[in-house]
Formats: sequence, C-alpha cells, structure tokens
Amino acid sequence: MSDKKIPRNKDNDYTETSAQTRRDFIQQKTDAQLTHLSQYSTDVSTLPGNIENFTGMAQVPVGLAGPVLINGEHAQGEFYVPLATTEGTLVASYSRGMRLLTASGGVKTTVLESYMQRAPVFLFASAGEARDFGDWLEQRYEDIKAAAEATTSIGKLHHIDQYGIGPMRYLRFSYTTGDAAGQNMTNKATYAACEWIKQNHPSNAIRYMLSGNIDSDKKYSRLNTLNSRGKRVVAEVTIPSDVLKDVMRVDGKTLFQQRQVSNTGSLIAGNANNGAHAANGLTAMFIACGQDAANVAESHAGTVYCQLLDNGDYYWSITLPSLIVGTYGGGTGLSTQKECLDILGCYGKGKANKFAEIVAATVLAGDISLASSIMAGDFVASHDQYGRNRP
Amino acid sequence: MSDKKIPRNKDNDYTETSAQTRRDFIQQKTDAQLTHLSQYSTDVSTLPGNIENFTGMAQVPVGLAGPVLINGEHAQGEFYVPLATTEGTLVASYSRGMRLLTASGGVKTTVLESYMQRAPVFLFASAGEARDFGDWLEQRYEDIKAAAEATTSIGKLHHIDQYGIGPMRYLRFSYTTGDAAGQNMTNKATYAACEWIKQNHPSNAIRYMLSGNIDSDKKYSRLNTLNSRGKRVVAEVTIPSDVLKDVMRVDGKTLFQQRQVSNTGSLIAGNANNGAHAANGLTAMFIACGQDAANVAESHAGTVYCQLLDNGDYYWSITLPSLIVGTYGGGTGLSTQKECLDILGCYGKGKANKFAEIVAATVLAGDISLASSIMAGDFVASHDQYGRNRP
Amino acid sequence: MSDKKIPRNKDNDYTETSAQTRRDFIQQKTDAQLTHLSQYSTDVSTLPGNIENFTGMAQVPVGLAGPVLINGEHAQGEFYVPLATTEGTLVASYSRGMRLLTASGGVKTTVLESYMQRAPVFLFASAGEARDFGDWLEQRYEDIKAAAEATTSIGKLHHIDQYGIGPMRYLRFSYTTGDAAGQNMTNKATYAACEWIKQNHPSNAIRYMLSGNIDSDKKYSRLNTLNSRGKRVVAEVTIPSDVLKDVMRVDGKTLFQQRQVSNTGSLIAGNANNGAHAANGLTAMFIACGQDAANVAESHAGTVYCQLLDNGDYYWSITLPSLIVGTYGGGTGLSTQKECLDILGCYGKGKANKFAEIVAATVLAGDISLASSIMAGDFVASHDQYGRNRP
Amino acid sequence: MSDKKIPRNKDNDYTETSAQTRRDFIQQKTDAQLTHLSQYSTDVSTLPGNIENFTGMAQVPVGLAGPVLINGEHAQGEFYVPLATTEGTLVASYSRGMRLLTASGGVKTTVLESYMQRAPVFLFASAGEARDFGDWLEQRYEDIKAAAEATTSIGKLHHIDQYGIGPMRYLRFSYTTGDAAGQNMTNKATYAACEWIKQNHPSNAIRYMLSGNIDSDKKYSRLNTLNSRGKRVVAEVTIPSDVLKDVMRVDGKTLFQQRQVSNTGSLIAGNANNGAHAANGLTAMFIACGQDAANVAESHAGTVYCQLLDNGDYYWSITLPSLIVGTYGGGTGLSTQKECLDILGCYGKGKANKFAEIVAATVLAGDISLASSIMAGDFVASHDQYGRNRP
Repeated sequence: MSDKKIPRNKDNDYTETSAQTRRDFIQQKTDAQLTHLSQYSTDVSTLPGNIENFTGMAQVPVGLAGPVLINGEHAQGEFYVPLATTEGTLVASYSRGMRLLTASGGVKTTVLESYMQRAPVFLFASAGEARDFGDWLEQRYEDIKAAAEATTSIGKLHHIDQYGIGPMRYLRFSYTTGDAAGQNMTNKATYAACEWIKQNHPSNAIRYMLSGNIDSDKKYSRLNTLNSRGKRVVAEVTIPSDVLKDVMRVDGKTLFQQRQVSNTGSLIAGNANNGAHAANGLTAMFIACGQDAANVAESHAGTVYCQLLDNGDYYWSITLPSLIVGTYGGGTGLSTQKECLDILGCYGKGKANKFAEIVAATVLAGDISLASSIMAGDFVASHDQYGRNRP
Repeated sequence: MSDKKIPRNKDNDYTETSAQTRRDFIQQKTDAQLTHLSQYSTDVSTLPGNIENFTGMAQVPVGLAGPVLINGEHAQGEFYVPLATTEGTLVASYSRGMRLLTASGGVKTTVLESYMQRAPVFLFASAGEARDFGDWLEQRYEDIKAAAEATTSIGKLHHIDQYGIGPMRYLRFSYTTGDAAGQNMTNKATYAACEWIKQNHPSNAIRYMLSGNIDSDKKYSRLNTLNSRGKRVVAEVTIPSDVLKDVMRVDGKTLFQQRQVSNTGSLIAGNANNGAHAANGLTAMFIACGQDAANVAESHAGTVYCQLLDNGDYYWSITLPSLIVGTYGGGTGLSTQKECLDILGCYGKGKANKFAEIVAATVLAGDISLASSIMAGDFVASHDQYGRNRP
Repeated sequence: MSDKKIPRNKDNDYTETSAQTRRDFIQQKTDAQLTHLSQYSTDVSTLPGNIENFTGMAQVPVGLAGPVLINGEHAQGEFYVPLATTEGTLVASYSRGMRLLTASGGVKTTVLESYMQRAPVFLFASAGEARDFGDWLEQRYEDIKAAAEATTSIGKLHHIDQYGIGPMRYLRFSYTTGDAAGQNMTNKATYAACEWIKQNHPSNAIRYMLSGNIDSDKKYSRLNTLNSRGKRVVAEVTIPSDVLKDVMRVDGKTLFQQRQVSNTGSLIAGNANNGAHAANGLTAMFIACGQDAANVAESHAGTVYCQLLDNGDYYWSITLPSLIVGTYGGGTGLSTQKECLDILGCYGKGKANKFAEIVAATVLAGDISLASSIMAGDFVASHDQYGRNRP
Repeated sequence: MSDKKIPRNKDNDYTETSAQTRRDFIQQKTDAQLTHLSQYSTDVSTLPGNIENFTGMAQVPVGLAGPVLINGEHAQGEFYVPLATTEGTLVASYSRGMRLLTASGGVKTTVLESYMQRAPVFLFASAGEARDFGDWLEQRYEDIKAAAEATTSIGKLHHIDQYGIGPMRYLRFSYTTGDAAGQNMTNKATYAACEWIKQNHPSNAIRYMLSGNIDSDKKYSRLNTLNSRGKRVVAEVTIPSDVLKDVMRVDGKTLFQQRQVSNTGSLIAGNANNGAHAANGLTAMFIACGQDAANVAESHAGTVYCQLLDNGDYYWSITLPSLIVGTYGGGTGLSTQKECLDILGCYGKGKANKFAEIVAATVLAGDISLASSIMAGDFVASHDQYGRNRP
C-alpha cells in the first residue's frame, strides 16, 4: 500500500517541490490535470500550522460589496466588504442591502459579550458524587483558573457552567481569548485544568473526557445560542419609510407582516436562525478573511427582532449569539486573507470586535435585501379589493 | 457619494481591466496593498454567474487526505480527497481516519434520498379556508406539478408537504434536481407553481409569500433533518477490534462509553449533530470543490449511531440528512474547483451521488479520528483499581 | 416481603371490600388517615380497565368557566367549561378570556387533521438494506394496511412516514381512530402490521422494536408538532379594538409588541409553545372530562400567530398540533367524568372533534386573558415622554 | 346576557349552597345530570385560593403502587405510591418496575438543585443600552435582591441570568422557595424587583414586561432543561443481571441496544425526554398529591443515561431537570390530596425534596417497566441464525 501513500517530505514538507511532488502523484493516480491549483503567489513557507499535505491553492472569486456605513463601538465609518463566493447575485444582493443601511444613516453594531469554550465532562459512580464534585469545583475555582491560565498568556477563564446529568457533571469553561478565535488556546487550558482537578480532587480515581459534546464545537446548538460562543453581537437599524420605499420598493407594514410569517415558520421548523440567509454573508467573509469557515455551523445562528414604528419607520435587529471570529492567528496572516482583512482595517491584535461588528452589519444588509426582494416581487396583496383587515 | 461607489463597467464587467480598476479603487480608499488578490490563473470570462464586482481571487491552501477506500453504490475504490482549509491538523486528522477506514475494509456509503425544496406559504382569512386550500391543492396536484416542471428540463416535483398554522398553509415543495444542488431551479419552478395556483384557485384574492422560512434555506432546522434537504446519505463501517487498537490506540468499549456521553451531551445541548466535527471536512471539501460553502449551515447536521458488537468490533454510522451538493452548475466549473472534482472523478452530470458518498465517507473518517484521539490521550480510566463495573 | 405486598383479590378485585382492605393496609403501614379517599359515589364495578389496586378516589375541585361563544364546525353555541384544578385564579382568568371572546362575536375553531401514531423501528445490517426495506414497504402498503386494520373495527391506517438513520428504518404509522384517543388501538394494529412484515418480508431475519421513540408518546417532540399527533386544531378570533379596551384595558398595539417579545423569547428558549399557558386550561379540562392528563405533555404544544389589523382590531390564533382527546373509551365513561362531558354535550361517539374545538377555544381564552393582564398591569410604557418611535 | 352568567355569591361563594346553585344552573342550561359531581367529603370552606365558581368534585380513581425501596438523601425506606389515573395498566406497570427496583437493592435518588423562576424582559432603544443595563444590574444585584426578598419570608433570590437579544435584556430570576413550588412567590418578588429597578435606574423611561416567555412557565423549553426549573433530581439504579432476567425477562445487552435506538429516535424527533413515559407517573402522582398537574408540561422533560457494565449488570439513570413540586400551599392541604401526601410522609414543610425523590424513583420504575416489556415481548432477535455481530 506504500505506493498509495501521499508523498511527504518529513524534513521540509512545506516547499514548492513537495507540493509539486504531490500534484504529480495525484495526476498520476487520477485523471485530474492540475493546471490551476499550482498557480498562486502565496509563499509556501508561511503555511506550516495551516495545512498538511499541501498540494496547491484553491482560487475563490472575491467581489466587493458596499460601502456600508457602520456606527459601531469598534467599527466606525464606511466599509467595503470583500466576499469570497461562487454564488451569483450574492455580492449584488448584499451591496443593495448596504446601500439601504447607509441611506438609513448607518447600522449600529454592538458586541454584547465574547467567550470561547471547552466543555469536559467528569464521570462518577453516582449523581451524588457528581453533585458534590460540582460543589468542590466552585470552592477550588481560583486554583482551577490559575491552572488553566498558566498555559496561555492571553486566555482568561471567565466562568464555568455546570450541568448535572445522571452520574456525570458536564462543565462548560468559558474564556476570553483576546483577538484569536481561541479554540486551541481553550483546549490546552482546559486540559491543564482537568489534569489539575484529577491530581487535586480527594478521589483518587477521577475520570473525565475533554469534551462531552456540549461545547458544541463546529455544530449549531441551542446551548451556544443561549450562552454565547465566540462573539455575541447585534446589528440594528431604523429604516425611514421613504428610504425603504425608494431603495427596496416595499413598505414597513408588508415587511412586518412577513416577519410574523417568518417567525412562525422558524418556530415550527426549528430554525437555527429566524432571519433570511446569514450563512451566505458569513461564509463569504470567512473565506475571504482567513476565518475558519467550518464555524459557519455555529456562527450562522441568529435571532431577528423587528418593530414597526408609529411613523412607519421600520426597526430591524439581528443578534448573532455565536459568531466565531479572530483577527490574529489561524489563517488570518496568509496572503490574500491578510489583504482582505486590511481592506477592512481588521488585521492583527485589537481588531476582533471591529471585525465582528462588520460581519454583523453585513449579515443585516443581506437579510434586509433578500426579505425586501421577496416581498417586492412575489407577494401580491389584494389590498384594494379586500382591504388589510384580515390576518 | 458617487466617488464612493465601487467602479462597475456595465458593458463588460468581467475583464481583467475591471478587476484592476476595483483593486486600484480599494487600495486608494483603504490602507490595503493587494499584492496577492491579483495573482490567479482563472480566466475572468468564466466568472459571470458566480460573482459580482469581481476584484481578485482568494488563495485557500488545499491539502490531500487519503486514500480512503469506499464501497458505495456510486463511489467505489480508493479516493484522495482535496481539502481547502487554513486549520492546522485538519488534513492530518482526516487522513488518519481514512487510514482506519481503509484498514477496516472500507466504508460503506448509501444515498437514501435526494430532494431540494422551496417552501411558500399561502395566507387566508381563516384556518378553515387554509385547510380547504390544502385539500384543493391535493386535487390539483398534477396540474401544479406540470406548471412547476414547465420551467425546468431537469427538476421534477416529487411531493408537497403541508403544515397548517392559524390562517396559513405552509407548503414544502420537494424536487429532484439531477446533479445540480438545485436551489435556483426549485425557486423558479415553485414561483411558477404559485402563480398557477393564484390564477386557478377559485378565490380571486389569494395571497402568498415565496418562502415562509421552513425551506429552511441556509440554516439548520429540525424539519430539514427529518424530511431531508439535498442528499440524505449514510456512511458506515465495522472496525475490527485489532485494527482499532493498532491505528487508534483505543478499544471499542471505550468508544462506546464515550458515545453514550456524547449522545447525552447532544440531547441536552440541542446539537445539530451528535458526532464530532462534520463541519470541518464538509467545509474543506465544499471550498475545494466549488460547492456553496454557506450550505454547511444545513449540511453539517448529522446523526451518529453506533453499536459495540459481541466480538469487540465496533460498528459506526453517520447519517447526513441534509447534505447539499452538486457536480454541475454553480462554482463547479471554475478553474481549481473543477480540478478538485476531477481528482475525485466527480465533475459533471451523473456524479452528484458519487460526490455525496465521498463527502459522507470523509465526514466519518474525521469523526472517528477526533473521537479516538480524545479517548486515547485524554481520558484516563482507573480500571485497575476500581474496575469497570460502575457507570 | 409478602406482608409488604399490596393486598389483591384475584377473583374480584374491584369491590368496595378490596378497596377497604387496601386502605386498611396502607393506614397500617403509614401514618396516613384515609378519611376522604373513601368518600365517593362512583360504582367500583365501572373501574376495571381504568385502574389497578384501586384504593379510593381523589377529589379534585371543579369550577365552571364561561360561557364562551364558539363558531366551530363541530362546536357551535355557548359553552360552560368544567375545569378541575387546585390553582387559584385559573377559573376566573379563563372566564374573563371567555367573556372577551364572546363579546368579540365568538371564537372560530377548526380541526385541520386527526391522527394517532405508533412508530416502530426496523433494524438491518446496513443502510442500504434499510432503504430497500422502505421501498418494499411502499410496495406492500395495502397488505400492511389490511393487516393493521384487521385488529380494529374503528382504526384506519392513513399513512406511514419513513425516516432512514444508519442501518435503521424508523416508521411512523398514522391512523384515524374515530372518537377514541386511540393509543391502544394503534398499538395493537401496528404490532399486527409488524408481525405481518416479519413473516412476509423476503429476509428471514428481520428485527424490529415496536417503538423507536419517535411516536413520541407522552412527551413533547418537534416531530409531533410538525406532523400532528391527535387533533391538529386552530382557535382564532378577531377582537374589535373597543372590546379589547373595555374588557381587557389594553390596546392591540401593546399586545402586538408583546407578541414580538414573546415570539423572540420562545425562539431563544426553545419553548414548546409560544403562547402563555395552554397547559393550564388543557389539564383542568382533561382531569374534569376523563382524558388522560399525562397527554398534556404532548398536547400543550402550540403556535400563536397574530396580526394587528389596520383598523386597530387584533387577530389572534393558536394552533394546537398534537391535542390528544377522546370522548369514548378510557376514563370518559366514569361518574363525574361523563357528567363533565355531558355539560359540554361531548360524551360518546361523534363528539371528539367537538370536544377538541372547545378545548382549543378554552386555551385561546386563557392565553388572551393572561397576556392582557400582564400588559395592562405590569408593562409601563413611557409614551408621553419619548413617543413610540423606538423599538 | 345576565341570565347566562354563572351564578356567584359575592359575600360567601364557598358554601354548599353556592355550589348547588351552580349545579342547578348548569343542569338547567345543559342536558347534564350532575349526580356524582355533588358527592364529596371535602369541606368547601377549605377551597378559597384553590378554585373559583366551585361546582363540585371530580372523582379520580387512585391506585397504590409499590412498595419501592428508595435510598435517597431525603426519601429513605419503602414507599407505597398513590397514583390517580383512569389509564388501565398504569398502576400495574409502575408496580412491576418498583418490584424490580426493590429487588435490585433500591433506587438511589439525589436532588441536584432547586429553583423557581420568573423572567422579565427590559426594553431599550438600542442593544448598547440594553447591555449597559445588564452591567448596571450586576452592580446593583444586592439591592435588587433585597427588593425582591422584601416580599416573601421564604423565597431567596439565588441568581439572575441575562440574555441579550437586539434592544432587549431578557432576565431570568432564580429563587429558592422552600417547600412550595413557588410560582406566585417568585412572581410577586420579581415584580417588586422590577419596580425597584424602574425607580432606581438612571434612565427615567425604563420599560419592561413581567414575562418575556423564557421562564418558560407551563411549557416545555430547552432552556429549563438546561438551567433547571423546580427540582433537578436524579434517580439511578444498578440492576443485577439475574434480577433483570427474573423480573423482566430481558438481559442488559438487549436493553442497551434498545437504548441506542431510543436515543437516536429522541435526537431526530426532538423529544423532551429520551425515556419512555415519565409523564404517566408524574401526572398520576401530581393529581393524587395536590400538585399542579399543568406543570407536567415542564416536569416531564428528562434525560436517560445508561451503561452496560462488564459483569452484565445494567446501570440506569434518569435526570428530571425541571420537576415542579411542593408539599406546602397550593392544593396540598385539601382533603384527599393531603391524605395521599401523608401516605408518602410528605405533607408540609421540609418535605419537598423527599417528595421530589419519590417522584423520580417512580418515574424510573415506570420507564424500566415499559422498556422491558417492549423488549421482552415485541423485539424478536434472530441471534441463533445470524449472531449478534451486526448493528
């Protein structure tokens, strides 16, 4: 089977030669002709820590949307947003929404909180032992915090949630992680904390798993939408009725009726998001800006809350409770990824909240655009004949 | 504000000149230096329909995992899987899982069903009218089907689900869509069907919205995991106990205990997936292979079901109920995207089920690898001292 | 341990003597003095099939609420509703809501559909076998239906839903069950169907469990709210703005704002019902009217959908998707239970839909009453100072 | 319409005369003959605070189950459990499960925590104001606690959870409430806290609703299962393999395989409980013992966690995270209700945890009984022919 193994060069696997060897290998094994995967400008020596068995570069088209005016606490001014996607109309649609937001005086953005988790579970012989362990944990919280934080110069343990089920104690460690998304940091810190617990707990047979699947890493969960994972960020806007009509050809009353229907549909279907298509904007920004796009699984969750105001203006907010972003580490420093972050002025330390706010504003723009488009074109109300006085 | 508008060239916006104009524009507006976004080999004339305001190409590192032996109905043989990601260890971890699957005799893959949806909602003056509309709809099903299918040579309406809530009738049109993911196709067909209904229903004031948010497009929903969206596909394997020990340094008993804990955690947290990290493999394949990565929101849902067999072998299955993939249209024909599909022998018509099976096998490999790694390294059981006869 | 056994009289356990023996026994074993449990008028000979180890009768206070004017398809006119409860204010609050509904011209009620389920699961060696079994099942549907229906003169198999997960095929048999709730009937019929399948399926080693826990009997589930269990029934009303103000001292605008907040709270908390307190009215009617009160677990699920009309009137609907009721069999024929059904004109065959409509109207009355009460008393808006033009 | 009004006697509505007047009224208005509703021994003067428009007493049959041996922290010894129900086989089935638990050495029960909630929501002009309010709330926590606790001699505010969504701050006040279920107590205390906040918060236009529907009162919610509502209590047992075989005619291996299938079914259906039928035992105990049976909506949620031990013994636990019970106030002091509590030695102050433990043990007994019954009778494995080495 050795001739089937993907070629590796242990001493120096991140060279152009290694990559070419693998491209040759795969061209020999399959019918593929790799004309384009080999065309890139990224310096392969920057890749360690980002990829294994490096073979080439995917080329993903980037379009610019905007500008969108943001009145955030961290993001302020007009932004052009790079979106990497192959889905036609996506950039155009988000741009249209950004035009509306800007014409409405801008979108307000707010980061509510910011944590990253690791959630080990401790197993005992009975529910009583598990509960007593929980009490002990609270008493030794400062020691555990110290053990965890000894592994990182940036991460700080903020709190530990506890959930008792049967003979188990599910823990959920929440950390602040600076401007990194922080999964690796919290992993390492929590492992250290668990080992400290194992050594210091009076029981000499304590058992645990580093994850009991309530983190819930790389997957949507109700728990994460309640208790936040990554940033919890809000984007909100009040759209003047005339702007709404001019840009979107709908009125607030129609949008608000649609909101009732969308909320109801979301309730019965069990949607992770009662808005339109947050995942589209998120994913395109994530790919462009060196974020881990797999986190769209968690990050696309959201809650839309709207109100029709007495003067006909329309208030629209979306809360993203588990938006996982970073502006440092991960893929953020790679060639095009850093450039896209630079377009937003978001590369490096001190920029994660700013980036989160721009992401939230972008999601809001896309949702408003799609919702308006559906209502302007497809929803034919028979107002004249029957009036509006029916549900 | 016109000097803020992103430059467009209406006559010919997909030229290198247009792209360069936009790069110049954004470099002038921001501090970004776009040295790498402009370095690509893709022919810009292939981009219409995939992007607007095209400005350059994101370079996303691609690594090769595998080979993985698949005994599917559509995918058969050993495959090398291209993964586009910036997350270190991801490719290595999936490769390790693939090694286990291959050593176990291969992974069996099965596509259970395959649909794409659009879910309009019709609004009435009362619940009774809405219910009667539902009955009428069933009677006129063949006509509605004909109206929908007149818009597409590929899509076929398979069935319509109905959900009555208050004065509304939520419909969920499920189509087969050949080898395309099919969102646009079903959108167009359903719009035609709705217009037919509006013209032919006895009431002359029928109202509808093209989406009532139960499709649930670009978002995880319970409904989609129940009733399928895209492919419903299973990957399963029986791992011999000695192979498990050799490759992963764990035994089936330990994995099965972990499975109980993970299931419980998933139940309480409300996870979209009771497995480990399906989104990782999915996203990396989606980016590499020209899929719409935003569909990770829906596609990452999954249900793991395992059994420990009497002889110590371990049966592991994962069902992905809403895997949205296509091998034709969308971004599949672009430069590196087509090459990565070619590596899998999955470009073009007649390949979507094959691609779905490889995706499912890849997800299984990643889950097995991560779960084993957690248990081998981090979970310290005190068997000797206390035995296993406690929960 | 025999002296610890609760006394039974195998030949004739449903006599006053047997009951007294048990009361003596328990008085001897514990400190309880059973002065009241022994005071009842029910003929013990009517109890077989309803209780074992009969020891006495709980006395649960019954209050009358109403009248409520119902314009249903099955329930028409004014009804006085017996509510068995020990919760103070419950009867008064429901009565107040009924006064509002009646003053609004009555509540419209509609039964959308009506099924009872049993959901076996078949287990195979692989996902492919399970899927093929599903195809076979569709082909033999008529035979299976015949086998199921041979066990009952009333139950009719309406359809079978299928859900493929791993090597399993979860089935969900939906029956119409006349005026009985039908759990036992469908249990027996489904068992017969499964045995028929076992004998007639080409595989000679077919395995199944009679329930795979997706029925989901005696528990709330998303699946049951989507696909109905028991009756799916809607109650709806349009409340004139002046009536709302007179009876409830609130306006529609305030209620509609509250609705947005309640919907949002329900979305984030994952509520089984986005209304106020359906379970209260349901439970009180169930206990009074001989229903299985344990079915409140399923029956309390609901979806509220409202609209504020242009003229200020307020449209309010609630859909109960899994309301389990019967007017025949079970506890419906017992002494006070039959009397309470008689108060509603709902005892016996042909009355289940009527009863379901009265239940839904009652739930609507209670929700409107509580919501109005919260808003009238507790929600202090500062309209004068700041106006309404904020969210 | 006055002749339609249910007769009330404002001065003294809780007399036998008043009740008889109402019975006469309803007999005149309907075809009902109230022979049994009027037969009871409860002193009507004990009813104020429990019922309005009192008309008579429902007679609900009570059967005795048990004895069940409980090794709890609060409940210790053998208990006979009164169950009020009209569902045949329920008492017999629970008794059978209790026999198994007792033969296994008894069931261990543990109360993990105990809270009651009220969850107001505060509304602001923007997300930033809402977040800042949250910070202010933490700073003034002690004052708010004092304001809440001033309204009650028993209730103590334990903590306040906060959830930011759009311009709103959802709060969840958790109290300890002694031996009362505590809904009214927490309602009153939280209202006082909110009014204190309104008066003391720097903004002079603060708005709130007393419930934002995340309490989630009288309805199942994911949030309540995570964060507890009422008691969080565990019942667990290790069943020796020979006892399992003797009493239930199944082995642990079969039950454990069924557990995998039930967990999977629960995951896909979105069940509130992955066990069998907790609601049955709960409801029957609640009706018998003067609990608010409407709380079955919340209380029936549960998480089953099992393990098959190396020696063939079977560990089974169920965690009820939102069990709402009280032994003081509400309906607990009424005639038969108090007697049933007396049978358990659970009437009055200091008994709520004991009662919760007996409820949990009863639920466990019922689940084990039903699950075993399904497997012993209905699940036909073809072990001989094909062995167990398939999923």
